[in-house]
Amino acid sequence: MLFELQKTDNNSKARAGKITTDHGTIETPIFMPVGTQGTVKAIDQKTLKEEINAQVILGNTYHLYLRPGMEVMLEAGGLHQFMNWDRNLLTDSGGFQVFSLSELRKLKPDGVEFRSHLDGSKHFFSPEKVIDIERDIGADIIMPLDECTPYPCDYDYAKKSKELTSNWGILNKEAFEKSDPLYGHKQYLFGIVQGSVYKDLREESAKDLMSIDFDGYSIGGLAVGEPAKNMYEIVDFTTDILPANKPRYLMGVGRPENILEAIERGVDMFDCVMPTRNARNAYLFTSEGIVTIRGAAYKNDFTTLDKNCDCYTCKNHTKAYLRHLFNTREILAYELATIHNLKFYLNLVREARINILNGSYIEWKNKIINKLPINVKEK
Amino acid sequence: MLFELQKTDNNSKARAGKITTDHGTIETPIFMPVGTQGTVKAIDQKTLKEEINAQVILGNTYHLYLRPGMEVMLEAGGLHQFMNWDRNLLTDSGGFQVFSLSELRKLKPDGVEFRSHLDGSKHFFSPEKVIDIERDIGADIIMPLDECTPYPCDYDYAKKSKELTSNWGILNKEAFEKSDPLYGHKQYLFGIVQGSVYKDLREESAKDLMSIDFDGYSIGGLAVGEPAKNMYEIVDFTTDILPANKPRYLMGVGRPENILEAIERGVDMFDCVMPTRNARNAYLFTSEGIVTIRGAAYKNDFTTLDKNCDCYTCKNHTKAYLRHLFNTREILAYELATIHNLKFYLNLVREARINILNGSYIEWKNKIINKLPINVKEK
Repeated sequence: MLFELQKTDNNSKARAGKITTDHGTIETPIFMPVGTQGTVKAIDQKTLKEEINAQVILGNTYHLYLRPGMEVMLEAGGLHQFMNWDRNLLTDSGGFQVFSLSELRKLKPDGVEFRSHLDGSKHFFSPEKVIDIERDIGADIIMPLDECTPYPCDYDYAKKSKELTSNWGILNKEAFEKSDPLYGHKQYLFGIVQGSVYKDLREESAKDLMSIDFDGYSIGGLAVGEPAKNMYEIVDFTTDILPANKPRYLMGVGRPENILEAIERGVDMFDCVMPTRNARNAYLFTSEGIVTIRGAAYKNDFTTLDKNCDCYTCKNHTKAYLRHLFNTREILAYELATIHNLKFYLNLVREARINILNGSYIEWKNKIINKLPINVKEK
Repeated sequence: MLFELQKTDNNSKARAGKITTDHGTIETPIFMPVGTQGTVKAIDQKTLKEEINAQVILGNTYHLYLRPGMEVMLEAGGLHQFMNWDRNLLTDSGGFQVFSLSELRKLKPDGVEFRSHLDGSKHFFSPEKVIDIERDIGADIIMPLDECTPYPCDYDYAKKSKELTSNWGILNKEAFEKSDPLYGHKQYLFGIVQGSVYKDLREESAKDLMSIDFDGYSIGGLAVGEPAKNMYEIVDFTTDILPANKPRYLMGVGRPENILEAIERGVDMFDCVMPTRNARNAYLFTSEGIVTIRGAAYKNDFTTLDKNCDCYTCKNHTKAYLRHLFNTREILAYELATIHNLKFYLNLVREARINILNGSYIEWKNKIINKLPINVKEK
């Protein structure tokens, strides 16, 4: 069985569980660092394992399909081999990038035609094609082709789009069942719940997908610009419908406080570029709030970035040194900041899990959540 | 004593020795990775110690003087503390950067006036000022202010410049003797032999400096565009004059084959941006020659970069993956390439040392040197 539910909190819907694949066990709730193009930006795989202790990372189907391309991927023996990563991998369907990144896309009932953002070359993604690509990549957990609606999205469009995603869900599942994994390890297919901010559409979408019966359920189409309040409402509503015995993945979320709120509402898995991208922009998450490390306030600050953090950066370097590296545009800045932000995220979900198992989740969350979004300098 | 000469080769002037400072022992011949702004570009200090095993790295006086500036450096407790590096550090005098990088420089008898390449601000480096700055930085081995002549350089200018460098040498030494180290560890001052490609000027320069009596002697003003043949001749000529009991440092050199030729001619220490800068440009040194890893030939090449290399990159990744990282401009490309190139350089001088100690230097050098500069794809 893919998912083992270990404990549900008495005071909330927060869950602790285990996802086990042929590449090991993921303890949930979990944050999954994004490794778009076969690398988590700015850090090496050894650091990702030994320092960050990432249990699962994401690859991006759209990007990997374009570069290095599936010919290289197949010859390499899949993404695990290509990037030398022996823990869990998850791939998205590429749908989000087709809708956000590619040019001249044309949505058709049987798929989506688009031009590459790199060279303008024309491509077509259908549910079957995406499953093929994800077999070639070989991630342990894979996502089906869906349409990710923007925000705001009018009801009629959201309804039509939800129906398309449900229809594609059937085709995705069929293609998945007709095909086999290529590299000797099992793959699991999730469904993606859509429906924008409309509860009736979310309910229909969830039920459509549950009738198809996926290995887990993603909640897509959120964190696309809607107020956090709407996001939490839709998450809360959707997890009430989804089965308890399957993992739930809130795609593309989010800030530390978003993650804690979504855990409280029954989500198990998260991914977001925020810790890595913000790190490269000198925006650092700490237990005391946000540190924008380029600031002049840190010029002579020889204290550690986060006294409660045990990462390589915090154990070895000062804020003044980090600021210097950012101001001189040294590559080491990006590495050290990425290590810290990812470890902060991984520590956060690890502590969430411990507190769920101890029955103290809400108490713990309430104690820390208000500090997280505040800029340290403003305090 | 700073330097212990352990062995001189019977068949050449190659030497094996030990330089010992308060931050440990450097086994020579040695290559010193360049850490211009308080970081060796693209790798962290842990990698530099545990993976590359660098025994000494360079800091750059001109750059550190401008950023983070000496106020921060003093408060940090010097560069060792600032960057958290507990092994040896060497700083150049900033002279090379003043002459190559800064704007509107005016050479005067008592120093050089220049404008920062960053913000146009006006500064003045005198021999005394440079010693002050290098006391603030606190490297174990420091260089005096000199004028580095370009190539070609006419005889009259080279002669005048050599005299200026000798005069500054006296002032550098006086300032050094009148001042004290700031951080509880001893510092050593080298002299820099100039004189362009003119042997009589090189001889005068070396003798001028030897009469001042420095802790070691650098050979400057080479690797600035002259043919390798001239460089080897001047090195050979100069090391015949320099005392055997002091370390000899050929500044800014160079390619692997240059280093082996200069070791044969009695040089102990080297630095160059080549392994790190070339790494970031996808130009990789291997035991079989040069690999320009962006090339299409490596698209499906799942072999290791250098089968004779034990670095993290070669142990864990394929040429196809490295090429993908460079082609997608991923930061990991720069880290992995830098690790390999630096380890290649450090392994090269380590093997040179072993062969000197074993009496087999020339035999070993002749066996490998012709492969080094050839592009692997052309073979």
